[in-house]
Amino acid sequence: MRNLKIRIAYRGTNYHGFQRQNNAYTVQEAVETVFSQILNENVTVYGCSRTDTGVHANEFVLNVKTESRIAHRGFVRGSNDLLPPDISVLSCEDADMDFHARFDCVGKEYIYKIHASESKNPFLTDMALHYRRPIDVEIIDKAAKLFVGKKDFGAFCSNASEKENTVRTIYRFDAVRDGELITLTVRGDGFLYNMVRIMVGTLLDLNEGRLTEAEILDILSSRDRTRAGITALPHGLYLNRVFYDKDEL
Amino acid sequence: MRNLKIRIAYRGTNYHGFQRQNNAYTVQEAVETVFSQILNENVTVYGCSRTDTGVHANEFVLNVKTESRIAHRGFVRGSNDLLPPDISVLSCEDADMDFHARFDCVGKEYIYKIHASESKNPFLTDMALHYRRPIDVEIIDKAAKLFVGKKDFGAFCSNASEKENTVRTIYRFDAVRDGELITLTVRGDGFLYNMVRIMVGTLLDLNEGRLTEAEILDILSSRDRTRAGITALPHGLYLNRVFYDKDEL
Repeated sequence: MRNLKIRIAYRGTNYHGFQRQNNAYTVQEAVETVFSQILNENVTVYGCSRTDTGVHANEFVLNVKTESRIAHRGFVRGSNDLLPPDISVLSCEDADMDFHARFDCVGKEYIYKIHASESKNPFLTDMALHYRRPIDVEIIDKAAKLFVGKKDFGAFCSNASEKENTVRTIYRFDAVRDGELITLTVRGDGFLYNMVRIMVGTLLDLNEGRLTEAEILDILSSRDRTRAGITALPHGLYLNRVFYDKDEL
Repeated sequence: MRNLKIRIAYRGTNYHGFQRQNNAYTVQEAVETVFSQILNENVTVYGCSRTDTGVHANEFVLNVKTESRIAHRGFVRGSNDLLPPDISVLSCEDADMDFHARFDCVGKEYIYKIHASESKNPFLTDMALHYRRPIDVEIIDKAAKLFVGKKDFGAFCSNASEKENTVRTIYRFDAVRDGELITLTVRGDGFLYNMVRIMVGTLLDLNEGRLTEAEILDILSSRDRTRAGITALPHGLYLNRVFYDKDEL
């Protein structure tokens, strides 16, 4: 028996997220179907994360246990030939038998892309949030630093229960501009449900003058979801990197 | 009566090119339907060019005559609200009544994008040619200069008749690399049918060692289409700029 660690990328537009669901086509279903063909046995994949409908992944890690003796390169090539064009296998390697893509993950990096322009860009429709107002990237970049550190993000989670531990550590949160495209990058040891999208929605509230930095700090300490910004739309969000080594964080 | 000069951009994946056709959905049909609504009369648009199925446009110019007194900004906003997400109106202005997007065009610039990588990129599937072999960009950039100047491109045209004038002037033809993405940019006073895609196919033959620079010069002087490279796939091609002023070329 082997335990394969597989890195994939996908454009989430046509999928109801990663995780297998009844009556909805997901990335997990697409890759399990193809991997079962390539490995010549019915396999289950274990993903590093759930992602929502429309969210993309530049890197997403999963593991799969198999009896197959297929070579890594053959697995990558064969899978890519059979997978739909919006999912790609980036790499495949053998991992320890106890490696688990989700439980062993020590951190993740997300990016959120905003296309700031009055006119829409037909090439970015499902790939970035179209935002018609001006963006002050310096102000957003400065305010993003308010989230950095070990903090309770209870106000930035869509479904937190009272008992859940909502403390997470954010290592970096930056905003940069490249022409009309603004990219926010946030790296942390873990993220609550919708946490990145709510933080982005809150930073856009700040950009529009509806919130101040002091109010964001106040919302953080309140743990009150109703006070933070809206959940920014999913199609600007990309899982960008997945970490299994704390030294890389 | 007014004559509006309109700049649009589109992702060509879902269209059978620009020009109106029976039994096939084209960009012209999509924009005429929306513009007729916005201008409140049935209008015909005159495009600067035909483009093939799957070809994209970062800039495409068309003109339309109308009695409407709509403001430019209202036209742009209203059109973008009604157009499908893969077509965008970039700008609208009043032009001289005798302006014609195609006949007055004095030059065009195309880019051709190549994603050079063993593994496919799910975000570039329909946006760049996926090319699994290594590319020597310096060699391609150097050979591209062979096409620059006033030359007979009869060998680089899919449907040239004996009588047609196949002389065109190329002002620049460059190849640059940005990571796995190679972009070829070619600007000229006009292009024959499939000319850019055949030149790209020929440069890729050179990259793979099937042609030398001397042979490309020989093919140019032969005017023999059967000797040039294949017509590179359409989805890497973008109409990038359209010129109406010779000084800008």
